[in-house]
Amino acid sequence: MIVTIQRIGKYTILFKNPPNVKGSASVCGKKEGEGPLGEEFDEIFDDSRLGEDSFEKAESKLQSQAVKLALKKSQINTTDVNMIFSGDLLNQCSSSTFGLRSLQIPFVGQFGACSTMAQTIIMSSIMIASGAANYSVAVTSSHFCAAERQYRFPLEYGCQRFQTAQWTVTGSGAAVIEKDGTDKPYILGATVGKIIDLGVKDTTNMGAAMAPAAADTLKNFLSDTNTSASDYDLILTGDLGEVGSKLLKELLSRENIKLSNNHNDCGLIIFDKEKQDVHSGGSGCGCSGSVLCSAIFNKMRRDEIKNLLFVATGALMSPTSSQQGESIPSIAHLVWFSNDNSFKIKF
Amino acid sequence: MIVTIQRIGKYTILFKNPPNVKGSASVCGKKEGEGPLGEEFDEIFDDSRLGEDSFEKAESKLQSQAVKLALKKSQINTTDVNMIFSGDLLNQCSSSTFGLRSLQIPFVGQFGACSTMAQTIIMSSIMIASGAANYSVAVTSSHFCAAERQYRFPLEYGCQRFQTAQWTVTGSGAAVIEKDGTDKPYILGATVGKIIDLGVKDTTNMGAAMAPAAADTLKNFLSDTNTSASDYDLILTGDLGEVGSKLLKELLSRENIKLSNNHNDCGLIIFDKEKQDVHSGGSGCGCSGSVLCSAIFNKMRRDEIKNLLFVATGALMSPTSSQQGESIPSIAHLVWFSNDNSFKIKF
Repeated sequence: MIVTIQRIGKYTILFKNPPNVKGSASVCGKKEGEGPLGEEFDEIFDDSRLGEDSFEKAESKLQSQAVKLALKKSQINTTDVNMIFSGDLLNQCSSSTFGLRSLQIPFVGQFGACSTMAQTIIMSSIMIASGAANYSVAVTSSHFCAAERQYRFPLEYGCQRFQTAQWTVTGSGAAVIEKDGTDKPYILGATVGKIIDLGVKDTTNMGAAMAPAAADTLKNFLSDTNTSASDYDLILTGDLGEVGSKLLKELLSRENIKLSNNHNDCGLIIFDKEKQDVHSGGSGCGCSGSVLCSAIFNKMRRDEIKNLLFVATGALMSPTSSQQGESIPSIAHLVWFSNDNSFKIKF
Repeated sequence: MIVTIQRIGKYTILFKNPPNVKGSASVCGKKEGEGPLGEEFDEIFDDSRLGEDSFEKAESKLQSQAVKLALKKSQINTTDVNMIFSGDLLNQCSSSTFGLRSLQIPFVGQFGACSTMAQTIIMSSIMIASGAANYSVAVTSSHFCAAERQYRFPLEYGCQRFQTAQWTVTGSGAAVIEKDGTDKPYILGATVGKIIDLGVKDTTNMGAAMAPAAADTLKNFLSDTNTSASDYDLILTGDLGEVGSKLLKELLSRENIKLSNNHNDCGLIIFDKEKQDVHSGGSGCGCSGSVLCSAIFNKMRRDEIKNLLFVATGALMSPTSSQQGESIPSIAHLVWFSNDNSFKIKF
């Protein structure tokens, strides 16, 4: 088999032999399990420490558990996996490095903040399509308690949250990417995002900081592929929340791109707006990761979604940069999933 | 052109059409400029803040400057670059995200601690070989003052340093990777490392923590390619320093692999052991990055080194994980550079 990737337009790549998702798994915490997607998750941990002695170690366990379940569902052994791409929000991506250490799979650490699920799938897909790997795993995680004390305040302070703030999901999603497979969905193409920074400094309003990055990447993909938003069953951002989703639509409308009912956001899907008090919605690498690798892929497997643009967004600031008065650089990476691996011939 | 990557053995990939380094640049601080490689660096900053108002912003500037110089020397515009792979030691890789933000090149953040230069070159090479990019940039950086206050103590404390400790290099190295080029060196192959953790917890002795990872990756590469250490002009680790280099040789000798005069370590090359008090040697992403992208590539361009194994090592702990009593997971990625792009036909 000749494996090749084709560049189209300025920013987009298409896979001539689209890799596919052999299997996937999502695990999450108690609050996520009580939300609308509770039934979709493979495992729900009621103990926020998962039996570990710190929240950081608990997050590592979320990630290793998601990978183990995804491999099991794919009927693949860890020794069959040639590379694993992983990243998270913790300093030095430590939930990834400690969580995956025992698996002994060649490891390529990624940093894309909450865009990590898209980034790891893009990298995995390129490895598969190029021949660099036969099986590659994409995984990411986040943990509410670990993120709060690292980025904001320890929970014990009991700080009041802004209405624009989002709630970091405790969860992890993992996907096994393979070549020449027949399991749905296929990965047809991708757009790697540029760093976009319109000067937003408010770390309690990440949606506003990230929306311009999502708009830029989506616009570039549609332009490169000469398609329109309505060509896709679902355009799924993650995680702009309520504020960021509104801003995304506004920014795109200025470019004459109309997002209608076919847009949704992982941060709006994972929690129940009425019953669960998460203000602007969910966030964190584990939000888009766990939503994609459970409910969304499941819908694609049942052909309820056939053609999906997954646009994961990340805010690339650190507490140090914010303390030094910096704005929030953001990024969005896009993955085009489809159940039809011959779709590409339209180009 | 059919672009393909071939897996060989269990862990190694070979490029059927080897990508090459079109150009590279290194920038560094005053101390590094006073070392044995001072003449090799493209730019030396005597002001440790580079005119910025924090060490972190100074590190961002090191990185953007290295990229700009590498592109200039390669006669490539930023708009010609399809992807940039970058990472660093700061929380949330902020010297990369802030340093590269203004360049507007599609960005794929990497985390491999001090193995980042090898990791970004591997990823860039795969992008080129697969067709996902026509030009890709690999870059990393570190800054002594930023690293000290984040990982250890603020400089103002005046802490005494352990003899096993290494000195984080203030510097950055960047390389432009292209396809079908004629500039030396070529990238023939690579081995992505596994996370190795033998239980070392002493964060003042990173060499000891990382040596087992270097030994594992090098052993796997030699076994996969059925070659021996003496087949290479230089096996360059980065950055094990004095302690780690000794341990590497000891670990490999147990596997009947003998490293002789053809081994060196970036941490031992960049500073003068007698005149500059850096204890066990240099370290930091910017150490192997700046050494490789200046002195080493220059030697290859002059055919003084024709066949190089570059084995960059990273310690993947965070201050938080160490405070929680964890050991130091480590990793090493290997890149095989050669001036002869037909070398591969031996396999």
